[in-house]
Amino acid sequence: MKTPYLLFLGDAVDIHYAKTASGIRDWRGEHCLGQFRLPGCPVDLGLPDMTPHDAAAGGAGTMILGIANDGGFIPEVWVSSIVAALEAGLDVAAGLHDRLVDVPEIQAAATRHGRKLYDVRHSSQSFPPGNGIKRAGKRLLTVGTDCAVGKKYAALAIERSMRGAGYHVDFRPTGQTGILIAGRGVAVDSVVADFIAGAAEWLSPANDPAHWDVIEGQGALCHPAYAGVTLALIHGSQPDALVVCDDPGRKTLSGLPAFLVGTIDNMIGLTEAAARLTNPAARVVGLALNTATFAPDAAKALLAEMTQKYGMPTFDPLRTGADALLPALAHFA
Amino acid sequence: MKTPYLLFLGDAVDIHYAKTASGIRDWRGEHCLGQFRLPGCPVDLGLPDMTPHDAAAGGAGTMILGIANDGGFIPEVWVSSIVAALEAGLDVAAGLHDRLVDVPEIQAAATRHGRKLYDVRHSSQSFPPGNGIKRAGKRLLTVGTDCAVGKKYAALAIERSMRGAGYHVDFRPTGQTGILIAGRGVAVDSVVADFIAGAAEWLSPANDPAHWDVIEGQGALCHPAYAGVTLALIHGSQPDALVVCDDPGRKTLSGLPAFLVGTIDNMIGLTEAAARLTNPAARVVGLALNTATFAPDAAKALLAEMTQKYGMPTFDPLRTGADALLPALAHFA
Repeated sequence: MKTPYLLFLGDAVDIHYAKTASGIRDWRGEHCLGQFRLPGCPVDLGLPDMTPHDAAAGGAGTMILGIANDGGFIPEVWVSSIVAALEAGLDVAAGLHDRLVDVPEIQAAATRHGRKLYDVRHSSQSFPPGNGIKRAGKRLLTVGTDCAVGKKYAALAIERSMRGAGYHVDFRPTGQTGILIAGRGVAVDSVVADFIAGAAEWLSPANDPAHWDVIEGQGALCHPAYAGVTLALIHGSQPDALVVCDDPGRKTLSGLPAFLVGTIDNMIGLTEAAARLTNPAARVVGLALNTATFAPDAAKALLAEMTQKYGMPTFDPLRTGADALLPALAHFA
Repeated sequence: MKTPYLLFLGDAVDIHYAKTASGIRDWRGEHCLGQFRLPGCPVDLGLPDMTPHDAAAGGAGTMILGIANDGGFIPEVWVSSIVAALEAGLDVAAGLHDRLVDVPEIQAAATRHGRKLYDVRHSSQSFPPGNGIKRAGKRLLTVGTDCAVGKKYAALAIERSMRGAGYHVDFRPTGQTGILIAGRGVAVDSVVADFIAGAAEWLSPANDPAHWDVIEGQGALCHPAYAGVTLALIHGSQPDALVVCDDPGRKTLSGLPAFLVGTIDNMIGLTEAAARLTNPAARVVGLALNTATFAPDAAKALLAEMTQKYGMPTFDPLRTGADALLPALAHFA
C-alpha cells in the first residue's frame, strides 16, 4: 500500500470504534499524514485534519478506513467520502467484513480513476491443512487472558525491541488492523475452519535459523467463542516462545459477563500444554500488561510485582516497550 | 431430501472413496433403493445395480453422490450421469467441496427439469459467534484419538440404542456424510473460524430437559491440523457426556506419520478439561472402538479388557451397537 496514509475516522463517536486508526497511528505514525473526519466526529487522533484533496496534494498514497462498527459493514454515509478519496487520486484500504469492491459506486469510482482497493480481511489465498512439521527459524506468539487484551500491541512492541537489538525479525499479523499496520498478513478469523492451522503455517514460513517471526495472537484459550481459533494458531505457529497478555483491570470476558477472564497461571499452563503438541520445547517467556488505567507509579509497581511473582519479564507494550524481554530471548540463540 | 435414494458410486476404485455411500447404507439402509456404478467400478455396497431411469421407475426420489476424491471436486466423467439422474426425475445431493450448482450443465439440467440440487457441505446459514451460555436439554459429543476414527458411527450407534431404549434423541451431524445420513446438520469444517463454536450452539439448540442431542465430533484435540475445530465444537456443544473413539490398530495420525495418535488416557484428560469451560459437569462416560480388523473373539476380549481397564462401557458401533452405554446415560436423568 502506498504511503503516507490518510486515516478516515468517518462518523466514529468513540475512540473504541477507531481501533484500526489508533493502531496505525501508534505503530506506524511515520506513515500517517493526517486524519479525515466527517462533521461532528469527536474522535481525535492528534493528526492534522485534512480532506482527501488536501491529503493527495500533500503526497498521500492511500486512505485507510480506520474505523469499524459492530457488524463490520460499510454505511451509506461513508460512501461519498470513499469515492472522493478515489477521485482525489488516493487508493483506499479497509479491513471490514463488508468489502469495498462489493459497493458498486466505490468499485466504479476505482475503475474510473485507476485506483486500487484493498480489502485486507479477505484473502484470495487458499491454504492447505496444517502438517505440523517443524520449520527452520524461531517464532514467538502472543496469547491472552481474553480477546482484545493487547496481543497485537505486545507483538509490535516485541518486534520493535528485537529490531532495535539487531535481531532479524518480522511482525506477522493475523487480524485486519495488524495487516493494515504491516501491509501484509492473514486475517485468520476469516479462514475456513479446516485451514486455520495451515494458514498459520503459511504465514510464518521456514526461514533462516536465527530469524524470528513475532506472530500476533487471536482470541484466547479460555474464551468459549474463539478458543478454537487460538488453538489452531498455536499449533500452526509452532512457537518457541510465548508471551501471555493481560488487562489487569478486567474481571470478565469481553462480551461474556458470565465468564471470568483467564488467570495468568492457568493461561501459562494451558498455552504451554497446547503448544508442545507441535513444538515440545515451547515455553512462556514473559508477560505483557496493559496498564493504561494505572497511574505511572502504580503501573511501575505492578510490573515489578508481576516480574517477581512469575519469575519472568513483565512489560507494558506502550508504556515501557518490550526491551525487558530481550534477555529471555537471548537464550534461544 | 426425497427418499428412497439411489447411491452413485461413479468410478470409485476403492471402498475407501465411497465412505459417504457406505455410511448411508450402514445407517439408513431402509432408504437405499440401489447403487449406480460406471462401467468397471469394482466397489460394491451389496445393493441392486440400477440406472437413474430404473431407480426413478422404482420410486427413487434422490440420487446421492456417495463418493469423494481427494480435493472434493466433481470430475467431468460424473457429469453426464448426474444430468441423466435429473432427466430421469431424481433430485441430486452431494457433500463435496465443489458445488453441483456451480457446474453449468448440472445447474441447467436441474432448472430444465424442475429438480432440486443439494450441496450439503455449504450452508447458506450464517452463524453468530458462540456465547457459552448453558442451554436446556442434554448433549453427548463423540471425540477421537485421531480423525476418521469412528466418531460418526459411534454417534449413530448411540442414537440408535437410546431411541430403542425410549429416549427422545436426535443425531446432530457436523460433516457431509452425517448430513446426508440425517438429512440436516452443519458441516463445521466449512464454517469460517470465528463462528465455529456459534455454529455448534446453533446445531444443538435449547430443548426439553430430558431430550438428548448426540453430536458427531470432528478432528481430534491431538491433531495439529484440526484440533482447533475440535475445541470449538466441544465448547459450542457444551456436552454433558463424551465418548472417546479409537481405532486400536492405528499407531500414527492419519496423514501425519510423524505424530502418534492420542492415547485414551490423554484424550480423556484433555477432553474433560476443555469441555468444562462451558459445562463444569462434563465427563467422559464411555469408549467406542473400531474392531473391524479383529477376529470376533479377539474383539470381544478387547472390549472386555478396555471396559475393565477404564471402568467405563466400551463398545464397537457396528459390531456390538451402543446398548452397553445406556446405564451410564441413565445417571444423567
